[in-house]
Amino acid sequence: MKLNHNGVTEPTGFYACGRYTGMKYKRRDLAIVYTEIPARYAAVFTTNQVKAASIIRNKQLLDEKSLIQAIVINSGHANSCTGQQGIVNNQKMAESLANALKLDINAVLTASTGVIGVQLPVDIINQGIEKSCVFLSSDRQGAIDAASAIMTTDTVSKEVSLQFTIDGKLVKIGAMAKGSGMIHPNMATMLAFITTDLNISQPLLQHAMSDSIIDTYNMISVDGDTSTNDMACILANGLAGNDEIIEEDENYIIFCKALNIINTELAKMIIKDGEGATKTLEATVRGAKTKDDARVLCKAIINSNLVKTAFFGEDANWGRIICAMGYSGAFMDPNGLSLAFKSRFGSIRLVENGIPLHFNEELAAEVLKGNSIEILVNLMDGDFEAKGWGCDMSYDYIRINGDYRT
Amino acid sequence: MKLNHNGVTEPTGFYACGRYTGMKYKRRDLAIVYTEIPARYAAVFTTNQVKAASIIRNKQLLDEKSLIQAIVINSGHANSCTGQQGIVNNQKMAESLANALKLDINAVLTASTGVIGVQLPVDIINQGIEKSCVFLSSDRQGAIDAASAIMTTDTVSKEVSLQFTIDGKLVKIGAMAKGSGMIHPNMATMLAFITTDLNISQPLLQHAMSDSIIDTYNMISVDGDTSTNDMACILANGLAGNDEIIEEDENYIIFCKALNIINTELAKMIIKDGEGATKTLEATVRGAKTKDDARVLCKAIINSNLVKTAFFGEDANWGRIICAMGYSGAFMDPNGLSLAFKSRFGSIRLVENGIPLHFNEELAAEVLKGNSIEILVNLMDGDFEAKGWGCDMSYDYIRINGDYRT
Repeated sequence: MKLNHNGVTEPTGFYACGRYTGMKYKRRDLAIVYTEIPARYAAVFTTNQVKAASIIRNKQLLDEKSLIQAIVINSGHANSCTGQQGIVNNQKMAESLANALKLDINAVLTASTGVIGVQLPVDIINQGIEKSCVFLSSDRQGAIDAASAIMTTDTVSKEVSLQFTIDGKLVKIGAMAKGSGMIHPNMATMLAFITTDLNISQPLLQHAMSDSIIDTYNMISVDGDTSTNDMACILANGLAGNDEIIEEDENYIIFCKALNIINTELAKMIIKDGEGATKTLEATVRGAKTKDDARVLCKAIINSNLVKTAFFGEDANWGRIICAMGYSGAFMDPNGLSLAFKSRFGSIRLVENGIPLHFNEELAAEVLKGNSIEILVNLMDGDFEAKGWGCDMSYDYIRINGDYRT
Repeated sequence: MKLNHNGVTEPTGFYACGRYTGMKYKRRDLAIVYTEIPARYAAVFTTNQVKAASIIRNKQLLDEKSLIQAIVINSGHANSCTGQQGIVNNQKMAESLANALKLDINAVLTASTGVIGVQLPVDIINQGIEKSCVFLSSDRQGAIDAASAIMTTDTVSKEVSLQFTIDGKLVKIGAMAKGSGMIHPNMATMLAFITTDLNISQPLLQHAMSDSIIDTYNMISVDGDTSTNDMACILANGLAGNDEIIEEDENYIIFCKALNIINTELAKMIIKDGEGATKTLEATVRGAKTKDDARVLCKAIINSNLVKTAFFGEDANWGRIICAMGYSGAFMDPNGLSLAFKSRFGSIRLVENGIPLHFNEELAAEVLKGNSIEILVNLMDGDFEAKGWGCDMSYDYIRINGDYRT
């Protein structure tokens, strides 16, 4: 399975567009995704108790097992903490798209990303939706525009795609995501929209999606803040023409593998574009007592401000990594622990069997110059392993978040 | 009870000194606290699974209900993640002080603060201890020197003291603390040394201390990292001459009140000196369903990087506060919520009964110019209330932590 970067219009029957409506100054701010036949829909949502109006509505549509034919996404305003007015405005946004595309309103999903606590400029959005639908396109350009329209503090748009074969039928998956700040490993700290022409039952689509996030989006952290608007959703319209996948057979496993590649890549792209990030960090914890311990330990490492700032400073202050694991809540015995750093400039061992090594600071400085650093931990406590992805914390993180609204 | 800033030599019979030994370049790096008669000892320690050698030893002495007569503290090296050698070195440090002062080794506590994972320069420390003891003084200067010797990234030393009367006897409490980074509300993310001449049983001393940290040190956060070396301890030598406090009577309550004032003040001083902090934040959550919910919600607010950076940027991005409470794990219903900010420049209401208000951005900017900001939340969910203290996150946090070791 070869990964490409072709986005949401890659699978058969999917259209997209991304437009300027004037909500944001000189930047695209509205995206629409459309499938020519109704698609099965699966999704995972933020665990934050405070949920944006769009999340509440999308969740309800998922509970009702609605077939979905279009998604409208605005950037600039999160429509979260906006009370009853926010619920009404979100409904109007769905209604506008349903009217414009002659769809049932329950076939329309909405998503919002941006500042919390500000009401949506409904008139601008509704006019924008009406004017945008004619630009829906199944071309590459439609996907490119949509992916750029959902960006907020993102500096690059994020698209991935993949093809594979099931029963002799070519199946395609495409996806776009946004995410840069307010990213924390507690599903689902970003927006991801995945399209596929696979024919699969809704329960299995949901099962595959729910499984896949555990070791992908849930294992990344930019800043430890779990947003109110996060969602990763997938639409499957069945146009690939394969026999419907209705059990966890080998075809299902092929799909899960493909979905995992898509979600892992999007998760890593989000981290690479982390607010102010100059380096990406990949933590691998081996030898943990349980899989869950391994995950919690990885997250503690990539989520520690002190670890993040040390890597920004290219300082081999490895004690902060052990410290972060120590307060993570997961079991770890520092006595058996080994720790090493690796980058394209080489690797360096820092701790062996719990004993700090006298390491060459010059070599460490060289290794830490890499813009992608692997943090390798072996605990010797058990047989379980996990990986997590984070980024360093730089002056730019402060700059970006010190005046986000202004 | 009037708070003063006289430090650990304030109570009768306590001596201190702070010296240069050469571990740190041109800064004091060794402190000793001594009581002329053995004192009852109570303490609370870090919850980090990785514990410094000094913490392990001090905990054991607490379990053994040892009477304590002296404490030696080094700054620059944490002696944590240093394996068996670290345990031996810590023991040598205690031994040196015991020999110099002709004490039983079990009457000596040790504490270390600084870089994790580096072995102590034992020879320098031992020579330093031998040379330092002659400088022990019950004067104000002894306390001042000790308080400055335990600093690491602290920019100011932290001392408090208090006097009160029990049964007609004047009782004094003195204290010093260090803490600036790796500060997180999960006891005890700093070092605090409290002295008193009160006569009190050891179990009640411990009880008072354990109770007091819940709403003081456990309610502060600089950066969410819980260190491996944290400890808050108290020595009570009984020289005030009051009848021993042996039950939770009114004298005990007076003492608890005094101890709470001491610990609250030290906690706030630590926050004010938070690494890179330009503003202190006090979060008050009222109307929570339980006391614990109120505490968790306060901590989530003061611990959010996005909240911290917004205050640094003087940006009234209040949605981040609601968002942080939402992912805290504690119950909160955003619909009834009210939110306001207050500083010496005025106050501004942002949300009422879950509805965002159209607020005056100029007034908000004015309020946020204050260097001490109150964040006032009322949830209308119940009758419980808590307070937490944090600081903003600035470029200097990144600068300080990007090259801590170098």
